[in-house]
Amino acid sequence: MTDANAKTKKAVERIPRKADDLSEWYTQVCLQAQLADYAPVRGCIVLRPYGYAIWERICAEFDRRFKATGHHNAYFPLFIPESLLMREAEHVEGFAPEVAWVTQGGGETLRERLALRPTSEVIIGTMYAKWIQSHRDLPILINQWANVVRWEKATRPFLRTLEFLWQEGHTAHATREEAAEEVQRMLGVYREVAEDVLALAVIAGRKSESEKFAGAEATYAIEALMPDGKALQAGTSHELGQNFARAYDITFTDADEQRKHVWTTSWGVSWRILGGVIMAHGDDNGLVLPPAIAPHQAVVVPIFRKGVEEVAAAARALQAELAGVCRVQLDDRIEQSAAWKFNEWELRGVPVRVEIGPRDLEEDVVTLVRRDTLAKERVARAHVVERMQVLLREIQDDLLARSKVDRDTRTMRVGEREAFVAALQAQRGYVLAPWCERAECERDVKAATGAVTRVLAQPAEQGAVCAYCGCPARVDAYFARSY
Amino acid sequence: MTDANAKTKKAVERIPRKADDLSEWYTQVCLQAQLADYAPVRGCIVLRPYGYAIWERICAEFDRRFKATGHHNAYFPLFIPESLLMREAEHVEGFAPEVAWVTQGGGETLRERLALRPTSEVIIGTMYAKWIQSHRDLPILINQWANVVRWEKATRPFLRTLEFLWQEGHTAHATREEAAEEVQRMLGVYREVAEDVLALAVIAGRKSESEKFAGAEATYAIEALMPDGKALQAGTSHELGQNFARAYDITFTDADEQRKHVWTTSWGVSWRILGGVIMAHGDDNGLVLPPAIAPHQAVVVPIFRKGVEEVAAAARALQAELAGVCRVQLDDRIEQSAAWKFNEWELRGVPVRVEIGPRDLEEDVVTLVRRDTLAKERVARAHVVERMQVLLREIQDDLLARSKVDRDTRTMRVGEREAFVAALQAQRGYVLAPWCERAECERDVKAATGAVTRVLAQPAEQGAVCAYCGCPARVDAYFARSY
Repeated sequence: MTDANAKTKKAVERIPRKADDLSEWYTQVCLQAQLADYAPVRGCIVLRPYGYAIWERICAEFDRRFKATGHHNAYFPLFIPESLLMREAEHVEGFAPEVAWVTQGGGETLRERLALRPTSEVIIGTMYAKWIQSHRDLPILINQWANVVRWEKATRPFLRTLEFLWQEGHTAHATREEAAEEVQRMLGVYREVAEDVLALAVIAGRKSESEKFAGAEATYAIEALMPDGKALQAGTSHELGQNFARAYDITFTDADEQRKHVWTTSWGVSWRILGGVIMAHGDDNGLVLPPAIAPHQAVVVPIFRKGVEEVAAAARALQAELAGVCRVQLDDRIEQSAAWKFNEWELRGVPVRVEIGPRDLEEDVVTLVRRDTLAKERVARAHVVERMQVLLREIQDDLLARSKVDRDTRTMRVGEREAFVAALQAQRGYVLAPWCERAECERDVKAATGAVTRVLAQPAEQGAVCAYCGCPARVDAYFARSY
Repeated sequence: MTDANAKTKKAVERIPRKADDLSEWYTQVCLQAQLADYAPVRGCIVLRPYGYAIWERICAEFDRRFKATGHHNAYFPLFIPESLLMREAEHVEGFAPEVAWVTQGGGETLRERLALRPTSEVIIGTMYAKWIQSHRDLPILINQWANVVRWEKATRPFLRTLEFLWQEGHTAHATREEAAEEVQRMLGVYREVAEDVLALAVIAGRKSESEKFAGAEATYAIEALMPDGKALQAGTSHELGQNFARAYDITFTDADEQRKHVWTTSWGVSWRILGGVIMAHGDDNGLVLPPAIAPHQAVVVPIFRKGVEEVAAAARALQAELAGVCRVQLDDRIEQSAAWKFNEWELRGVPVRVEIGPRDLEEDVVTLVRRDTLAKERVARAHVVERMQVLLREIQDDLLARSKVDRDTRTMRVGEREAFVAALQAQRGYVLAPWCERAECERDVKAATGAVTRVLAQPAEQGAVCAYCGCPARVDAYFARSY
């Protein structure tokens, strides 16, 4: 056994069963599939090439949609002077505890501390104040791809790291209505990418007061349900009202010649959503990637028993042909066994494995193995390309369909306190219940069950009462524990 | 005159003639063409949407070539613990004076200061030590797109900023020869993008000892000549030998079962190269963009004198047709005059302006105006698409051809001390001269003329003596002042 073989063999074996220890399973999949590694700095990870290749595809899917909805990318500084950060009171209160500060530079102590951006409303708002004069300058629709820093205590790969990669959209509008539309439009983009690209069935809606973004009037989010019954907030879109416009003096002369404050929004998705993909779709063999974001959608593994040359040549020809319709890798290493390769590519989540051996050659067929179900099928060589296209689509669709079924079967609708508390304590998934929208009630629910509201779905039925406290219900809310 | 009109009108007028004040011309083009703006943090800029759209294209051109040469992207942390940074002595000495330090995070003083990466050899080397075991793990070919921080005193948009965007390649190899090949390969990629994409005729070669990267055995660079006779270092590629491998303990078991240190390289290009494009190609009317990186390669400006509806419809049809062969914008705003638009799009460097007015409609022609030469041509409507494709290619090629002529005519070959000093003091461009390679001599030349070596071209002729000090010459070196 070679060095590399020994290492990876052990690696696969170190992954526990998903149902036995989700947390350790998750960490080991991140590490052993070489998505990420721990860095020599507390709470930070390295996004390794394989993980980055997935992230790059996720970014491209978002970026394409941001551009199609009229947004432009830009880049703003990492540093925010302390005095500037301090202007929007709620925002400061929310973020100050998590800020990292630069106090020294170029061998000198700085006169003013510089925050590393935990988010960029402040620095971008300051520039908008400079750029916006007239209603003709509106809307401003800008997105930034950047690293941000939040000094968290407990960290986990992708889900919570001191530094992370994300995108943050920041827009300014002449009216509240336009801003509100923008917030919903981008929430829709997030939902679309989550479902159509990442195959994650999400719930979407407004956050409660206590869960909203620091400085926002309203926050909307998409949430994905994880196997342990916890929800993962995977994207947020904020109506900032005129809060930042007032704090950073962002005004414009309207058509009626009046000077007015703009209405701003912001919205963001981070590499956390990749954590959601790993946790939601993976299985005991490792990662399961939706074809849309898989760096390799298929891997051709020749089986060298006899006739090595013929099999190798056939595998190369097959790879070349498949390359016309998908991203396909050929693994013709001779130092590894086919069985070892099967494990490796399953661990790494490649959607389809293509096996071709001497017997397949004789019979003029190849074997396709789906990663998601591990189902095998033998396909006539002449139809492989055609079948691959269909199969990749099927896998993508099936992953989403299963995610939807999973979400729906693990959403329990309850109206009564006892059932409500029992359902939350059971921690199987979402509990959808009429709720009063009182912060105090949410705190009590959290104390009793560990769960909070995730999103508020729709107005409660006429006359309904809060499942927990019995006060008049205002909304139907999804409750769950969360990451 | 509308608000926006007033603002931009003034804007154009604020740009001085390029020959009168290059420095102010440069700054004003960056600001008025809306490439960048000053941020509310000393020495930092905002890369505005128009500038970002150009940068995005430059990045894509590099990224494509990095991938084609076998490199993979990844992302490493922003933070480098002080103790880790301190291990490679020369590297520390070179970068320590420019480091920004995080000393506080999450409301607490950190036990160890964290440097914000000025470059990532240290953090990446640390990970390579962990990842590399066997010769089968080599080479490792990784690139990172990231922001880095260098605490500079004097700053200018793109050319020198406290925080900047760049890419940094970091590779590890089993042998010195492979590493040396990699360094030359990436220098070649830099040269190719500079010339074929950015239309910058560069010189390429090894840097002198005093100009090389801190911690490198040898640094190679491409340099572009600016209109004021100064050279701009636009990309560097370093042979790091085994310096970082020893400092960070990056070893592998070779095929002969011996444990050996790897050979590493690094190479980087930053948004500085965009500064070079602006300064080299622009003119008194503003920016001149090579078509390959122009966000809009052409802009259609309808001339509304009479028959507004017909002209508008014809302009729309023209834009739709041209969109099949190039990135084309239609500027059919009615609140701005055609003349105002001409100025605006010239300021922003759009390679081709397409004018279409009532007379053109009658005669079934359109007028094309090249941004680089301002030459006009009337083209039969039926041939516009075809002509546009050719014209964009011509502009791209002509920009490079002019850049080559400019570089060559401003390169003076001298062999004698008096002529050498006079040429350098005249500051017209490069002075190519036999040189002894002594650091002391380079210091003396700098003291006398302000110039240093930019790159070392080839071995000096047998028996040649240093143009400055008369010692035996070892190389022919390009001297110039630099940015």
